[in-house]
Amino acid sequence: MSVTAAKGFQAAGITAGIKESGNPDLALVVNRGPRLAAAGVFTSNRVKAAPVLWSEQVLKGGLVSAVVLNSGGANACTGPKGFQDTHATAEKVADVLDLNAGEVAVASTGLIGVLLPMDKLLPGVETAAGQLSEHGGEKAAIAIKTTDTVHKTAVHQGDGWTVGGMAKGAGMLAPGLATMLVVLTTDADLDSGVLDKALRDATRLTFDRVDSDGCMSTNDTVLLLASGASEVAPEYAEFAEAVRAVCDDLGRQLIGDAEGASKDIKVEVINAATEDDAVEVGRSIARNNLLKCAIHGEDPNWGRVLSAIGTTRAAFEPDRLNVAINGVWVCKNGGVGEDRDQVDMRYREVVVTADLAAGSETATIWTNDLTADYVHENSAYSS
Amino acid sequence: MSVTAAKGFQAAGITAGIKESGNPDLALVVNRGPRLAAAGVFTSNRVKAAPVLWSEQVLKGGLVSAVVLNSGGANACTGPKGFQDTHATAEKVADVLDLNAGEVAVASTGLIGVLLPMDKLLPGVETAAGQLSEHGGEKAAIAIKTTDTVHKTAVHQGDGWTVGGMAKGAGMLAPGLATMLVVLTTDADLDSGVLDKALRDATRLTFDRVDSDGCMSTNDTVLLLASGASEVAPEYAEFAEAVRAVCDDLGRQLIGDAEGASKDIKVEVINAATEDDAVEVGRSIARNNLLKCAIHGEDPNWGRVLSAIGTTRAAFEPDRLNVAINGVWVCKNGGVGEDRDQVDMRYREVVVTADLAAGSETATIWTNDLTADYVHENSAYSS
Repeated sequence: MSVTAAKGFQAAGITAGIKESGNPDLALVVNRGPRLAAAGVFTSNRVKAAPVLWSEQVLKGGLVSAVVLNSGGANACTGPKGFQDTHATAEKVADVLDLNAGEVAVASTGLIGVLLPMDKLLPGVETAAGQLSEHGGEKAAIAIKTTDTVHKTAVHQGDGWTVGGMAKGAGMLAPGLATMLVVLTTDADLDSGVLDKALRDATRLTFDRVDSDGCMSTNDTVLLLASGASEVAPEYAEFAEAVRAVCDDLGRQLIGDAEGASKDIKVEVINAATEDDAVEVGRSIARNNLLKCAIHGEDPNWGRVLSAIGTTRAAFEPDRLNVAINGVWVCKNGGVGEDRDQVDMRYREVVVTADLAAGSETATIWTNDLTADYVHENSAYSS
Repeated sequence: MSVTAAKGFQAAGITAGIKESGNPDLALVVNRGPRLAAAGVFTSNRVKAAPVLWSEQVLKGGLVSAVVLNSGGANACTGPKGFQDTHATAEKVADVLDLNAGEVAVASTGLIGVLLPMDKLLPGVETAAGQLSEHGGEKAAIAIKTTDTVHKTAVHQGDGWTVGGMAKGAGMLAPGLATMLVVLTTDADLDSGVLDKALRDATRLTFDRVDSDGCMSTNDTVLLLASGASEVAPEYAEFAEAVRAVCDDLGRQLIGDAEGASKDIKVEVINAATEDDAVEVGRSIARNNLLKCAIHGEDPNWGRVLSAIGTTRAAFEPDRLNVAINGVWVCKNGGVGEDRDQVDMRYREVVVTADLAAGSETATIWTNDLTADYVHENSAYSS
C-alpha cells in the first residue's frame, strides 16, 4: 500500500520517458489534507543536487502538499540550469494541481552530471496528475527504482491511524542516508514539529546506520507527510515508534537489495563506553573492504574486525576485545578464541559482534559484503 | 641491491618453513657498523602486532644492530604468547650473532591471529645467520613477500654514500602505512635524531599517501638503519631528499603491485586552502569504492569525485569545483565541463585532478581501482 496506506493521500507512478529503458520514471504523491504538515531529512553531503537544495527550502515552511520524484537522472552537479529545472518541475505540479509551488517538494535519482529531459518530464507531470489515486502507492514505488531489483514499501497500523512509505536505494548507501529517496505518509493529526522530531529520531537509528559501501550520495531525501485525515493524534512515543519501525523495515529492504550483495551483515557493537563509540566502531567494521570480501568468501576472518576497530578513537584495550561471528566467539581478549571452523556462514545473514569491554552502550550497523558483482555493476554504470 | 647497496650491511633470505608453500619466508638484515643508528615509523592502528610493540621499544634507544623479518604469519592478535615469540626471536638473533637483543628489531607479515611456528622459525634464524652476505639484499627482499607478485627494492646513490631499501606490501595499503614492511639502509654517517626526522618527513609524503584499500594494518613497520661506513655525513636536505626518493620509488611499486588492481590512480588535489585539506580530499576520493569501480570500467564518472569531495570538511564552494580525468576538465564550476568522450582511459595510469579553487596547496595520493580480482583474492585469503 506504500504511501497511500494512510488516508488523505493519492499517488501515481508513470513512464515519462526520462529513462531510455522505457521503465516507469516519474512518481507523484499528493497530500489531500485536511492538514499539510511535513518534515524532511536530507543528505549531509556538501555537494547537494538541485532538488535537495529546493526541497530543503520547501521543508523550512513545514508544509508539503505534493512530492514529485523522478528516476533516470539525479539532477546533481548541473549548475544553475539544473536548479531552474527543479523549480520548473515544482511550478508545473503546482499549476496542474492548483497548489502553491513553495509547498511542492522535488526528489531525483540517477546519474550525476546530466540535465533532465524537461521536454519529457513536464508532460509526464501532467500524465501523472491525471492518474492520481488512493491506490497509486505501489506504482509510485515502482517509478522511483534505479538499480533496485524490487520496489520497497512498508506499512505500520496504529490505533485508528497509519504510517506507510516507499523507498528506493541500492548502491551508494552510506551514513548520510544513501542514494535513497524515501516518502513516508501518515494520517495521524500531528504538526510539523512533532513530525520533525519523530523523523530525526527514526533516521538516526535506521537509515543513518545502513552503510552499504561508505559512499555518501548527493541526493538523499527522506520526507514525512501528515494529512490529519484520521483525526487521531497519537501519543508521541507511540507515533515515533511507528515511524522508526517503518524506517527500519525500509532500511533492511535497502540492504537486502544492495548492489551485487550476497550477504546482509549485521554489525553489533556491545559494551561500548558511549553510543558514539559504538557507532564509530560499527561503521569502521562495516566499511572494511577486506572484511567484506572475507565474508563474501564465508571466511570468519576476525583479524580484519580487530584491525578495523584499531583505527577508531573509541575507548577500548586491545587485549580485552572479543569478537563473535554468527555467535561463535572466535576472538577472546584480543587473541584466538573458539575454533573458527565452528562458524557457519552459509546463510545470507551474517552477524558480527564486537565486544569492546569498555561500558554498556550498543549500536547496530547494517552493511553487506563486497562482491565481484558489485564491481561489475559499478564499473559499467554510466557507460 | 636492496638493503645491501649501502656499505656496512649484510643480509640473507631463506626458507624456514613458516609458509606452507615452501617459498622463502625469513629475512635477516645486519648492520656491521661502525655506527648502529636507527629510526622507525610504525602503524598507527591501535591494535598492534607483537613485533610492532617490541620494535617500538627497541627503536626508542635509537640503536638497531639487526632486523629479523618473517612472512607467513603476522603474529598479531596472538596475546602474551605472541609477544613471547617475538622476544624469543630477537633473543635468538642476538645469541647467534653475539648482539644485544634490545637492539634487534622484529617484523612479521601474514595472517592475523595465528601463532608462528617457532620450531621452524628459530632454526631458520640460525640458517639465515650462516648465509649473511654483502650480496644478500635481493634474497632478503624476496623472503618478505606475501601476496606480492614481485619483490620491491630501490637505491639512491649520493656523493660517496648510498640509501637502499626493500619493501613488501600488496593489499591492506592505507594511510597508517600499509601491511607494509620496509627496511632502508644507508652508509651515511648520521645520528638517530637526523634519521628520525628524515624518515618521518619522507613517509609523510610517500607511504602515508599510498591508499590502496583504506584498510590499515596491524603490522606496518618502516625502519631506517645507518652504518656510517661511508664516513660521509651529507647535508640534511640532500640526505632527506634521498630517503624521500627511495620511499617514493618503493611506494609506487607497492601501488603497482596492489592486489587485483588493473589501474594505478594518481589523485592530485590542487588549489586547496591548506595541505591538510588537500590530503583529506585526496584520501576521500582515493577511498570511494564507486569511483574505483568506475575507473576499473574506464568510465570517467566525475560525479563520483564530486560526491567524495562533498563528504569532507575541506574549504570549497560546490559551484567552484573543477575535476579533470587524464587532463580533460570534465567538470567545471561544479557542473558539466568538457566532453567526457575525450577522456582516454586505456592505459594503466589514470590521473584524477581535483581543483578546489580555495587556495594554493596541493597533495597527491596514490591508489588503485577496485576489481573483481581484488574481491576474489580477499575472499579466499585465510581459507
